[in-house]
Amino acid sequence: MARVNENFLKLKEGYLFPEIAKRRLAFQQSHPGAKIISMGIGDVTQPLAPAVIESMHRAVEEMGTKETFHGYDDNGIGYAFLRDSIVKNDYLPRGVHIDKDEVFISDGAKSDSANIQELFGLDNIVAVADPVYPVYVDSNVMAGRTGPLDGRGMYQKILYMPATAENDFVPAPPREKTDLVYLCFPNNPTGAVASREQLEAWVDYARQNRSVIFFDAAYEAFINDPAIPHSIYEIEGAKEVAIELRSFSKTAGFTGVRCAFSVVPKELRAYSSTGREVGLNGLWGRRMCTKFNGVSYITQVGAAATYTRKGKDQIRKAIGVYMNNARIIRDNLASMGYQVYGGINAPYIWMKAPPGIGSWEFFDLLLERANVVTTPGSGFGPSGEGYVRLTAFGEPDNVGEALERISRM
Amino acid sequence: MARVNENFLKLKEGYLFPEIAKRRLAFQQSHPGAKIISMGIGDVTQPLAPAVIESMHRAVEEMGTKETFHGYDDNGIGYAFLRDSIVKNDYLPRGVHIDKDEVFISDGAKSDSANIQELFGLDNIVAVADPVYPVYVDSNVMAGRTGPLDGRGMYQKILYMPATAENDFVPAPPREKTDLVYLCFPNNPTGAVASREQLEAWVDYARQNRSVIFFDAAYEAFINDPAIPHSIYEIEGAKEVAIELRSFSKTAGFTGVRCAFSVVPKELRAYSSTGREVGLNGLWGRRMCTKFNGVSYITQVGAAATYTRKGKDQIRKAIGVYMNNARIIRDNLASMGYQVYGGINAPYIWMKAPPGIGSWEFFDLLLERANVVTTPGSGFGPSGEGYVRLTAFGEPDNVGEALERISRM
Repeated sequence: MARVNENFLKLKEGYLFPEIAKRRLAFQQSHPGAKIISMGIGDVTQPLAPAVIESMHRAVEEMGTKETFHGYDDNGIGYAFLRDSIVKNDYLPRGVHIDKDEVFISDGAKSDSANIQELFGLDNIVAVADPVYPVYVDSNVMAGRTGPLDGRGMYQKILYMPATAENDFVPAPPREKTDLVYLCFPNNPTGAVASREQLEAWVDYARQNRSVIFFDAAYEAFINDPAIPHSIYEIEGAKEVAIELRSFSKTAGFTGVRCAFSVVPKELRAYSSTGREVGLNGLWGRRMCTKFNGVSYITQVGAAATYTRKGKDQIRKAIGVYMNNARIIRDNLASMGYQVYGGINAPYIWMKAPPGIGSWEFFDLLLERANVVTTPGSGFGPSGEGYVRLTAFGEPDNVGEALERISRM
Repeated sequence: MARVNENFLKLKEGYLFPEIAKRRLAFQQSHPGAKIISMGIGDVTQPLAPAVIESMHRAVEEMGTKETFHGYDDNGIGYAFLRDSIVKNDYLPRGVHIDKDEVFISDGAKSDSANIQELFGLDNIVAVADPVYPVYVDSNVMAGRTGPLDGRGMYQKILYMPATAENDFVPAPPREKTDLVYLCFPNNPTGAVASREQLEAWVDYARQNRSVIFFDAAYEAFINDPAIPHSIYEIEGAKEVAIELRSFSKTAGFTGVRCAFSVVPKELRAYSSTGREVGLNGLWGRRMCTKFNGVSYITQVGAAATYTRKGKDQIRKAIGVYMNNARIIRDNLASMGYQVYGGINAPYIWMKAPPGIGSWEFFDLLLERANVVTTPGSGFGPSGEGYVRLTAFGEPDNVGEALERISRM
């Protein structure tokens, strides 16, 4: 008799975004005339850069001719041309030396951040910020690394580290020993960034405890402040304790194209029950070549084009549009008297609901009264209660209109 | 202290294909003049169909304009236009009614066949044919559903069902109860196909034991014999017990484009420890929307083009090239006195080594004496010992030359 993975049954009903889509649809059906503006799901709206489009056309053309056709990508970890560009453009200019064999191309940072836990035993203790991107937690629930959900909305055995206005939404390392730590900066959902000193404290913590940090840097392209590190590897010693995840989704508008990468340094180790050191670069390589078969050649050619001079200028421009949105959202909401966070080095604005109003209540209020879709902060964890997340990825005109409607509320 | 998933340490060193690549490279380096012909890894050589190229150009163009840009694919399970085409073209003409919500678009049948086991508890007993596509076994080893590798090259707790010349490489259902059964027809690596009666016996077995069958039909497009089912759902009752996996990789030359799909019927159930029925369609949906974010819009548009009249004709033509190769390989090797199987309804030829010669030994012999790369049968399981797999995906000219060289050996 086939028995189900009962860890799946511990999951909260429905992933956050499908639930939002359901409420939005229900509202639209009962108010067919309403022009809903989405500031909820973090999807981009600017088209792909012309340099990317041009390169992808060329790659499509190559796939149509026997002589230039591309089949399987060797080993499924990405073409050298793309991994080289990453090493030279994302890391070297920041003084970080990454070998291209430490870079693994994938179909998305969502997949990577969900799959990376597979390399680790079920007895590791996981630490996450609260609020947090749900995938980190849910993938560990599914794997069986947690107990059931408790009354506060937390899974047992996970260490939740509150990220609140009191600590500027950047939790310090805990007193407890933990084994696997998920950090995301610039942060989704709060828009907070970690300073060099804060990251140093985390690297120290991981070295002392021989923990592994999963550093999700999917939003690094949105950092404006030159003092803020873009990569955890800008911190000395980080290669011994950290895996970094990056994505073309938000940087280059690839949400519908699917390309990302992980960096797993060769010096990074975890331990067997007998204390034997096991290199994680080789282990992740084994996982990738067994359970994945690489990213479309066309996609990889497109991703590589983001590193050309033209490509860089063009994607900077799109990011400029979003960061201008972020500034407008922040400033307007603040001038209406709302408390807002993030939106300076991140495309997310973390908005406090008026006193006494919960996240879903505020979500419904904004949907009904302003016809604006947000993301309820409580969907990211109990400490997100009382907040909603706004994204800056909308059309500038829509952003303006959404703010006007909110101001009229 | 981060502890490693020790199940990974049970895996045989290196995935099969990287090992082959290593030996090939070593030979090439010591014989720089040798013109090696690959009949090893099952990668295609014909370019994409013109209808696919044309559609992908159009999709790339759409991604460059704000009005027609596509971001996230809702829920990450694929665009309705593609799922509709699959339902109408792959299933309806065979009298099989599949709802489009039972179809999940993915980046590859390798990913699907590796990931599907996540839905099930670790105490399920897995049955596989021997020889078998390594991903089925390795993904279960990594998850912890097996014991260590034994001296015969089998992982403990897995039921290996010998597929040999005696049973025409189609194992009958075992006497033992098993919970999760991997079947692949047309078979990789042996090229065998299962008749309707043989599949009926499997569906009966699964119904009696409340097992779940994973039916890998990645090679269904290579079936010539009209009596052979293309889908397990052509068997009555199969929707209650089977998940089907399909791919555009070999059908339409998408090995470098990455698109596949799984079908998880709504009537399919597995059980909790308390005997509660759990629908697998919902569970797989939850897995997909949590750990995956969909396939490139451009890829999906290209995949949909394979279902147009032009697309169908064009991909049939490429398959014709490969099946002509298969016939030539079969006929020539047979006339040289070799025992060969498969290659009639499948792009794989299963070639018996001369008596007393093992798979890797024969692999090395063919590499050294004919400069032809094959895949050692023992890499697919102990019952593959004494065989090598040849693929029909090569260039016709190369196939002819490879056979000439083998005949001179």
